[in-house]
Amino acid sequence: MSKELVFGHQNPDTDAIVAAKAFSYLQNKLGFETEAVALGEPNSETNYVLNHFDEPAPRVIKTASNEVDSVMLVDHNEAQQSVSDLGDVTVTHVIDHHRISNFETAQPLWYTARPVGCTSTILTQLFVQNKIEIPANLAGLMLSAIISDTLLLKSPTTTDEDREALRALAQIADIDVNSYGLEMLKAGTDLASKSDKDLVDGDAKSFNLGGKSVRIGQVNTVDLADVFSRQSGLEETMKAENAANKYDLFLLLATNILDSNSELLVVGEPKDVVERAFGGKLSDQNRLNLPGVVSRKKQVVPPLTDAFGV
Amino acid sequence: MSKELVFGHQNPDTDAIVAAKAFSYLQNKLGFETEAVALGEPNSETNYVLNHFDEPAPRVIKTASNEVDSVMLVDHNEAQQSVSDLGDVTVTHVIDHHRISNFETAQPLWYTARPVGCTSTILTQLFVQNKIEIPANLAGLMLSAIISDTLLLKSPTTTDEDREALRALAQIADIDVNSYGLEMLKAGTDLASKSDKDLVDGDAKSFNLGGKSVRIGQVNTVDLADVFSRQSGLEETMKAENAANKYDLFLLLATNILDSNSELLVVGEPKDVVERAFGGKLSDQNRLNLPGVVSRKKQVVPPLTDAFGV
Repeated sequence: MSKELVFGHQNPDTDAIVAAKAFSYLQNKLGFETEAVALGEPNSETNYVLNHFDEPAPRVIKTASNEVDSVMLVDHNEAQQSVSDLGDVTVTHVIDHHRISNFETAQPLWYTARPVGCTSTILTQLFVQNKIEIPANLAGLMLSAIISDTLLLKSPTTTDEDREALRALAQIADIDVNSYGLEMLKAGTDLASKSDKDLVDGDAKSFNLGGKSVRIGQVNTVDLADVFSRQSGLEETMKAENAANKYDLFLLLATNILDSNSELLVVGEPKDVVERAFGGKLSDQNRLNLPGVVSRKKQVVPPLTDAFGV
Repeated sequence: MSKELVFGHQNPDTDAIVAAKAFSYLQNKLGFETEAVALGEPNSETNYVLNHFDEPAPRVIKTASNEVDSVMLVDHNEAQQSVSDLGDVTVTHVIDHHRISNFETAQPLWYTARPVGCTSTILTQLFVQNKIEIPANLAGLMLSAIISDTLLLKSPTTTDEDREALRALAQIADIDVNSYGLEMLKAGTDLASKSDKDLVDGDAKSFNLGGKSVRIGQVNTVDLADVFSRQSGLEETMKAENAANKYDLFLLLATNILDSNSELLVVGEPKDVVERAFGGKLSDQNRLNLPGVVSRKKQVVPPLTDAFGV
């Protein structure tokens, strides 16, 4: 069995980085030879997490087939969110908590998807099932991923399994989840230090919806005004991204992590489908208030998918 | 939570019928409300199994959306192998041991695929993980599915996990695997009682390969001559099926379960791709010897997929 690379999606968030490290650790214990890598640099939240638990960031790769024949995907499956040469390697394992789309293999594979808030929750269960101990610093990374994906268990994506995994990991890592979690989330909302491109595309994912190429970014903040005071610059950047990458539509979801409300900024077409998806009218400034919306996966992609009539 | 239907693929084999019954049993124990159904009548091997363990055949359905909003798939995922109105219902769970293809959801779901010989092997592991006891007659069905899919552990799809599950189930069901297994397999090879249509299409599955609609059937026998003495009738039926269903290519794999060799009968085009896939020339009678080939999934679909350049 030759070496395999393990990685999460492009524009990695904390779960994408952490799940790669945790799954690689688990698979190596089970007898595989793997290396956790990443499809981009860690964001500021993830850097805070890695520093806090004194763990190195994974090596960043651009392509996989120059190094290995086979790969394992964590926290994603859609080809357009994965490594650019995914078609040239064999996917042997996937562990994920997203919908399945634009994913195909020639051979049977190991695939575990669960409708839970975070890949690291599923990983916690896999460690237990396989009776493999989670080291304290890895538990710290994994609980950080759960806090990040569920916004401290406040996102509607949160399940009892996430709560249970977080509790178990906090015990192993000996961490006060609430105080650590808020510090960690705030570390990801230091917007002043970020460029417009970072805000717009730092967390963005691509979706093929009804034949349209739709890009959806999300930025967390403790004050929506910190985002929209920069609206003209953000819009220019979104227009430029659309032109450069042939996206039809770019949505930027600005989310207040303190009160769990969001506002959407829309650039491109078809805007009427966006309005239909969320049952509201865009403002003159192409913005749409989305009270109670915090989850791209659960509250943005499904209504858009329906509205596009996919 | 409203009721969900659980079913395997069209033209059900023993694993498709049994896995639906076993997964439904497990999910009901876990708090879901489900009913195992089937997309066709049991074949003669499966009838032997159901009779032996005194279990009823599942109800046959044509469509799902007239009864339920949500379904659980076992032993398949490709839409063209599933219920005709799959697009009108939500798939909440999949348990399978095939490649993933032509499968897409709008929402995250529960999906467990393992590269093992039989869905019932994965189910055996799930019962253990969830600490749910397998009743003796259900264990009998599940071990029959493993014997069927792995041809008594002789297929190259067989893994250590299948061997272990079969051993555990045989203990619960109190069955002598070798003597029971051979009787069961032979019950599925009573070809004289079957029509040409039964032989050609009774176990057939559809695949989209390189833009072509490819139908692949398999018939088990204890003597290949029993199949090819009927070649002209089989070919006529395959031609008629191609015409009626717009298949480009129909492959019938006749497999001798005693010596684990197969011979392929080919009707339709492109024949040159079939020859390239298996590195051989078709005979005048459009047949190709495939020594050591017994698994459609592992030894037929992958080389075809490669040859079609998918």
